Amino acid sequence: MLVVKKFGGSSVGDPERIKRVARRVVEEHQKGNQVVVAVSAMGDTTDDLISLMKQVTNNPPEREMDMLLSTGEQISIALLAMAIRDLGSDVVSLTGGQVGIYTDDVHTKAKILRIETGRVREELNQGRVVVVAGFQGVNPDGDITTLGRGGSDTTAVALAAALRADVCEIFTDVDGVYTTDPRVVPEARKLSHISYDEMLELASLGAQVLHPRSVELAKQYGIPLHVRTSFNHMEGTIVEEAPDMENAPVVSGVAHDYNVAKIGLFDVPDKPGVAKTIFKALSKQSINVDMIIQSAMRNNMNDIGFTTTIDDLRKALQIIEAIQDEVGFKGYTHDEDVAKVSIVGAGMISHPGVAADMFEALADEGINLEMITTSEIKVSCVIKRADTEKAVKALHKKFVTEWQ
Amino acid sequence: MLVVKKFGGSSVGDPERIKRVARRVVEEHQKGNQVVVAVSAMGDTTDDLISLMKQVTNNPPEREMDMLLSTGEQISIALLAMAIRDLGSDVVSLTGGQVGIYTDDVHTKAKILRIETGRVREELNQGRVVVVAGFQGVNPDGDITTLGRGGSDTTAVALAAALRADVCEIFTDVDGVYTTDPRVVPEARKLSHISYDEMLELASLGAQVLHPRSVELAKQYGIPLHVRTSFNHMEGTIVEEAPDMENAPVVSGVAHDYNVAKIGLFDVPDKPGVAKTIFKALSKQSINVDMIIQSAMRNNMNDIGFTTTIDDLRKALQIIEAIQDEVGFKGYTHDEDVAKVSIVGAGMISHPGVAADMFEALADEGINLEMITTSEIKVSCVIKRADTEKAVKALHKKFVTEWQ
Repeated sequence: MLVVKKFGGSSVGDPERIKRVARRVVEEHQKGNQVVVAVSAMGDTTDDLISLMKQVTNNPPEREMDMLLSTGEQISIALLAMAIRDLGSDVVSLTGGQVGIYTDDVHTKAKILRIETGRVREELNQGRVVVVAGFQGVNPDGDITTLGRGGSDTTAVALAAALRADVCEIFTDVDGVYTTDPRVVPEARKLSHISYDEMLELASLGAQVLHPRSVELAKQYGIPLHVRTSFNHMEGTIVEEAPDMENAPVVSGVAHDYNVAKIGLFDVPDKPGVAKTIFKALSKQSINVDMIIQSAMRNNMNDIGFTTTIDDLRKALQIIEAIQDEVGFKGYTHDEDVAKVSIVGAGMISHPGVAADMFEALADEGINLEMITTSEIKVSCVIKRADTEKAVKALHKKFVTEWQ
Repeated sequence: MLVVKKFGGSSVGDPERIKRVARRVVEEHQKGNQVVVAVSAMGDTTDDLISLMKQVTNNPPEREMDMLLSTGEQISIALLAMAIRDLGSDVVSLTGGQVGIYTDDVHTKAKILRIETGRVREELNQGRVVVVAGFQGVNPDGDITTLGRGGSDTTAVALAAALRADVCEIFTDVDGVYTTDPRVVPEARKLSHISYDEMLELASLGAQVLHPRSVELAKQYGIPLHVRTSFNHMEGTIVEEAPDMENAPVVSGVAHDYNVAKIGLFDVPDKPGVAKTIFKALSKQSINVDMIIQSAMRNNMNDIGFTTTIDDLRKALQIIEAIQDEVGFKGYTHDEDVAKVSIVGAGMISHPGVAADMFEALADEGINLEMITTSEIKVSCVIKRADTEKAVKALHKKFVTEWQ
């Protein structure tokens, strides 16, 4: 069996934890399985590097940021390989470039174009554990790139896909995927199985266990993901194609996300190509736009609202400002004091009226809805940040606790 | 003009120092010169990484050590490139592998096989400052190697040779090459010029300003070296081919080296091939042997003594033990409580009797000589460690202060 395991920054946060991860990897290897391990930078390394950087400049070129930050994973893989060797398994560590992870050249947010698996396969065939630096690759010029948010999960799943692994295990500090955040709602339950689509909605919505990029990849290549903790051997949550959509629970989970900022453009001329100009300009700079809402036209003018992450807000506003004359809208506002709450469930497809129930549950708590979007298996609302906990509790009570 | 500048770990020890180095580099670049900068890891980075490593294992595979330690220079180049960009010069940082520094695969002590200068030339032609990670390269498999002691100097000089640079400036925390260590002898004088050969003897002998590997390379390719401080703009010492050997001072400098250990083999059978077996075994494991002395034969048995560095002592003793039966010597001893003092000068060739004067000066101080070697331009003696300062003072007084 070929297993890809991914350990995040807190799992390799210090030498003792690295040794614990090594024991876990060697256990698997000694069962006779082929093992590829993708790791993140140790706990605080990335923050330490960023703080060092800020003492040098406030305006670092992104290429050089990648050169700097990619050292974090390189340190982890070297140390983990040493710990694995110490326990008796033959092992080799590989940087993103050495693995053959080729990306585009959008520094700090690169996308994987292809993985050349020759070196990894060769090392596996020699009986070695292969320890891979997550989060990084090289562009066509051989320059180091990083994959941005969720990069290490993406490395693990992309490798699992390229190697046709039997399973990709994602080790986190929680023991699986819950019906909602247990820190907010103590009654939250761990799910033993969840479909890619539900996980995707939950991941996109800030459940923070798995990054949506990695879930998308896993779905695309049919790689089962096993989300579990590195602190014990309990089974976690398996993410895979739903075998029986009809019997899926109506609502699998309730998610919330604080990393949301709202931007509103007002008095946008109602003519063809306006939306294209705005959102092309944003996507060209790799700004992820999430919800988009266009209000009813009046006097040939629209209002357009959309959300992005708080990290991207400043850059997004610069772009908006730069295209204001070209597009011809009168002004814009932004608001970071918001959050997004969502319900997700494959069963929603066959249960109309779930959205209305959600709005009612929120209204009962006196919570105002600022934006709404729906898909076949989720409903999301942007609300005031301060209302988030109250909203999550009410939704979990209504949909998860009561219905199931 | 094409200038290669090398800055050591203390020159880039913290963000402020990195910015100072950046100013110096940008000054040169704004004069219209092409500039390549080789840098070491920041001050304590390497020590920090080693201490982290020791918490994971006491027996790290050397390949993984290189993977780990090479991150130190990668952090420096990224930060220095950011600081240079901030001052307005276009710049790119490159790891050893990206530069095209190809080495053999003796991890932690690799030798440069060739440098493919295509990428560096292309960047220089685009008007960019090129910031290069010292101390590292890649082996034919693309695995990261490090060059061992003096590695960053070697990177700088090898690049200067490959690029046919006009000069290679080595920035250190001293302002040039002195007639002896000024911390030991306050009368020590800075030399404005010194020949490669003299520098080579001084470097080999522990003057610690320049590593002998880099001086050898510079001599071989005729690259003038300028040893100077990064703390001010004073001229330092130029190392180049001696233009006029006849007028060279008899003794240019007095060097001492504490990184010396003595190993003695006794009752070695006097038969052909014995020395070969011993020293081949050592060199195969990349143990540098310095002085070798074989005593007069008695009863078909020899005593063989040699010195190595303290770092290599343990490994050397293991090798000696492993070959004892094969070679058939009766026993061996070792001594770390020694040091080496030397006088160096191109003028010694035409002044016989200098060695005798040296022995006399040491005898006058009551210093016992444990080993002696001579070359055309130097005489070295191994003495008790405790006598070192006394010896250096006496030799500097006799040869440098009195004669010149």
